[in-house]
Amino acid sequence: MGRPMGMNLLKAGHTLTVWNRTPERAKELVAAGAKQAKTPREAAEASEVLLTMVSDPPALESVLWGPDGALGGLKAGSTYIDSSTVSPALVKKIAQACQERGVKFLDAPVTGGDWGAREGNLVFMIGGEAETLKEMEPVLGVMGKKWFHLGPNGAGQTIKLAMNAILALQVGAMAEALALVQRAGLQGAQLLEVMQASMARSGVLDVKSPLMLKGEYKPSFPLRLMHKDLGLALELANQLGVALPATAAAREVYNYVKGEAKEDLDYSAVMRFWKK
Amino acid sequence: MGRPMGMNLLKAGHTLTVWNRTPERAKELVAAGAKQAKTPREAAEASEVLLTMVSDPPALESVLWGPDGALGGLKAGSTYIDSSTVSPALVKKIAQACQERGVKFLDAPVTGGDWGAREGNLVFMIGGEAETLKEMEPVLGVMGKKWFHLGPNGAGQTIKLAMNAILALQVGAMAEALALVQRAGLQGAQLLEVMQASMARSGVLDVKSPLMLKGEYKPSFPLRLMHKDLGLALELANQLGVALPATAAAREVYNYVKGEAKEDLDYSAVMRFWKK
Amino acid sequence: MGRPMGMNLLKAGHTLTVWNRTPERAKELVAAGAKQAKTPREAAEASEVLLTMVSDPPALESVLWGPDGALGGLKAGSTYIDSSTVSPALVKKIAQACQERGVKFLDAPVTGGDWGAREGNLVFMIGGEAETLKEMEPVLGVMGKKWFHLGPNGAGQTIKLAMNAILALQVGAMAEALALVQRAGLQGAQLLEVMQASMARSGVLDVKSPLMLKGEYKPSFPLRLMHKDLGLALELANQLGVALPATAAAREVYNYVKGEAKEDLDYSAVMRFWKK
Amino acid sequence: MGRPMGMNLLKAGHTLTVWNRTPERAKELVAAGAKQAKTPREAAEASEVLLTMVSDPPALESVLWGPDGALGGLKAGSTYIDSSTVSPALVKKIAQACQERGVKFLDAPVTGGDWGAREGNLVFMIGGEAETLKEMEPVLGVMGKKWFHLGPNGAGQTIKLAMNAILALQVGAMAEALALVQRAGLQGAQLLEVMQASMARSGVLDVKSPLMLKGEYKPSFPLRLMHKDLGLALELANQLGVALPATAAAREVYNYVKGEAKEDLDYSAVMRFWKK
Repeated sequence: MGRPMGMNLLKAGHTLTVWNRTPERAKELVAAGAKQAKTPREAAEASEVLLTMVSDPPALESVLWGPDGALGGLKAGSTYIDSSTVSPALVKKIAQACQERGVKFLDAPVTGGDWGAREGNLVFMIGGEAETLKEMEPVLGVMGKKWFHLGPNGAGQTIKLAMNAILALQVGAMAEALALVQRAGLQGAQLLEVMQASMARSGVLDVKSPLMLKGEYKPSFPLRLMHKDLGLALELANQLGVALPATAAAREVYNYVKGEAKEDLDYSAVMRFWKK
Repeated sequence: MGRPMGMNLLKAGHTLTVWNRTPERAKELVAAGAKQAKTPREAAEASEVLLTMVSDPPALESVLWGPDGALGGLKAGSTYIDSSTVSPALVKKIAQACQERGVKFLDAPVTGGDWGAREGNLVFMIGGEAETLKEMEPVLGVMGKKWFHLGPNGAGQTIKLAMNAILALQVGAMAEALALVQRAGLQGAQLLEVMQASMARSGVLDVKSPLMLKGEYKPSFPLRLMHKDLGLALELANQLGVALPATAAAREVYNYVKGEAKEDLDYSAVMRFWKK
Repeated sequence: MGRPMGMNLLKAGHTLTVWNRTPERAKELVAAGAKQAKTPREAAEASEVLLTMVSDPPALESVLWGPDGALGGLKAGSTYIDSSTVSPALVKKIAQACQERGVKFLDAPVTGGDWGAREGNLVFMIGGEAETLKEMEPVLGVMGKKWFHLGPNGAGQTIKLAMNAILALQVGAMAEALALVQRAGLQGAQLLEVMQASMARSGVLDVKSPLMLKGEYKPSFPLRLMHKDLGLALELANQLGVALPATAAAREVYNYVKGEAKEDLDYSAVMRFWKK
Repeated sequence: MGRPMGMNLLKAGHTLTVWNRTPERAKELVAAGAKQAKTPREAAEASEVLLTMVSDPPALESVLWGPDGALGGLKAGSTYIDSSTVSPALVKKIAQACQERGVKFLDAPVTGGDWGAREGNLVFMIGGEAETLKEMEPVLGVMGKKWFHLGPNGAGQTIKLAMNAILALQVGAMAEALALVQRAGLQGAQLLEVMQASMARSGVLDVKSPLMLKGEYKPSFPLRLMHKDLGLALELANQLGVALPATAAAREVYNYVKGEAKEDLDYSAVMRFWKK
């Protein structure tokens, strides 16, 4: 998702320095005018605003604190925005490191997927200082249409994890219901049709269920990332002493499918728990 | 729900004979022109079309096979429509008993709640013969705007149970996410606001989540009935050998709240698992 | 299990009249001196003490209330002992029917399996009047060595269901732990060896785990019956408003394996959830 | 547990240098002849064999890699034994760091509790080189009677986590069964008595269930540590793609109780989910 976000920044006239663990992945951005940094640190040193977008907490820790990490390159007075989905605990650790360096920091995970990133239609969930958000609105506005200021650093991640837990359970519930109906000898399509006429209607019903019926699991949001996010949500809940029985049950179903899968699948492939 | 359905039948000019275990509950319908039967059997004997609406399988078995039960009063050539939510197994037993008597039978559970019943806006999920449904459309059309023919007897109940399992999980997921966010010190309302801008939007988000935030649990669909329906869905799934891990986890949360509750609550009161 | 129990009764000099849904199954007992009844009613009419042992609640309801059911044949002053594992709710219904007929009734489910039944080594869990139990001790003593008076009718079943839930979870826990250890590339046998030296030692570790390691699932106690008992335990718990999250999770794992299995398996085959 | 282990080392004539985050906790050992190090590094520098025993992964990371961490003090040719319960992933990271320094390393978590530590009766679950274990047997033999060589580094932790998951589920199963039986109006003690006569007998039944009946939860093995170990087991299982539905359900029950508890409790206090 970093690429389409970067393209929108370039189109809007921003100067962009990029770094990717796999340098070829930066090609398209470089062709469009971005400079390519050799290390995360170099990218940070070159920028007034540093933006990171990686797949999980270890990847982010490596980018920030690894050899030639970005944190060492951040200048006092600059701003750092992380749009990865990671744990609120890691976000708080980053926030403290930034504060010690005089760097302003926002956690700003997104929703909207590949499509939203390309169209500049992302929704940002923001944790951090309201003033910093105010300053960054012109930058965020190039990549998204909406942002929500949700509280201090960590709040963005907390809301994002809660929302992804809901999505995982909505898709999981749809999968359980389809499995039941089909094993009873009925048509899954009919369940979907009735649902559209009821309070059970939902974005998941519109977007995911037709693909689940066809068994088309080309990754839009990969199952391995949804599985990771469920793990982060449960980790947070278990630190706080909040029991999440259904989320925990659903996570093990996603885990089962992840363990059996040989290819990269969308998270709606949770259906494979019942149909192989 | 039988009362508003009956009122709509009377308004449409149908002759109506009613029976209720608690006779006073039939008052309003009698005042509006219905005859009152002394037994379920008497109601069945008086009718071309028998319609039943009770709260669970034992209640339906009692109405049909108990002392002066309705089944003994059904005439050959008449039609029986059951709109209760019960098990597909019971529906199949009823279907066989009807066939032996030359009675046409539809399982026709509904969605739409009290409001839908009053407004003649119910949605019927139908199992049974297409021809019988065709004949009954003028009757159903008085009480609802939509009906779906889903398969042979039992199909209506199967789809209804699958849909209620989804609703219970959607509400349960919302409750888990709100509990997480609030325990983390954030505002539940902000989670709802972000969800509206995302694929996590849903009927449950629109209708139930604002009440969950306020802790207002006046029963629209009572928790004890949702808990019963989850039990029926799991019973069916366990007969078919379809594992439903998240539904099973959610059922125990509803069970916990049911066990602690002293008053009748809406199923969105599942939130009380976390907040007492 | 009825056969070895009957053999012990015959060996002890009791007169025995038997009935089995599948008449050939009574052959061995008839060859050993039992009379064969044509119906459950006939068996009840011929006996001072009626003993039933069937596989589930519907089978018991059919034997008692079906055509030529046993209940109609029970004489006032006689005693009825049921050793099936069924719901406390059904037991209470039977208790009332017996009382109306002047019949003394004990619910007396057993533990000890095939081996215990053959060796006259069953353990009886008794619900009912202490006096009735006192009178029946000579009969029970032919089939078992131990009995526990646990409370009024239903208490025997309640304790039996609680105990089977524990066994199912112990075996399920063993299966989860073996699956984890083996997927991590280690030897399951080593887990078992360490457990024997710790507080995790158990009857299940001694008896079931070696077979789970070998994947030998010849039914000692069939998975379909353990799955049924888990259903009965959860049904009871959900009537009482007692949440059983781990039991509910385990039931779905047994359900999954039951749904996939083509042959009759021991309940330790719950391991097949991970290893096919 | 470090204190009684240290006392046994001193009694056996070993020279001991100790470090504890809370220096007063080392008093008793110092009075008995141990030298007190000012930092973990100092303790490592002073020793041929370094032994660590802390409560969780972050504590161990801090002791090894924090300011004046032990890792920097380990001499080439020395041996490091960690007896904490942590993740296999952390163990593998430690193993690599040790190898780079020419240090021999064993992961050696224990079972046996406070009592076992005092009596020199611990059981060690060992991952690492067989040769290193051979060399360390005289040291281990001072603190325990048994050790099992289970595989390469990480194997000790994996078996330990699997075993604790089993214990947590056994205690959780006992709690669910007691809750069911008591809510049904029966005596929990009777369930325990019947279990002793059956295959459901276990170490947990002997040791924990009498305390659960009395509601005495003085920590022998604290609930917060069992909850942590369940988290580590699930983290490992989710990395490996092994679904653990019952373990996941049980973890949320422990989580619920941890979230409500105001004092330090034994893990058998999981009963408080039902009885407050």
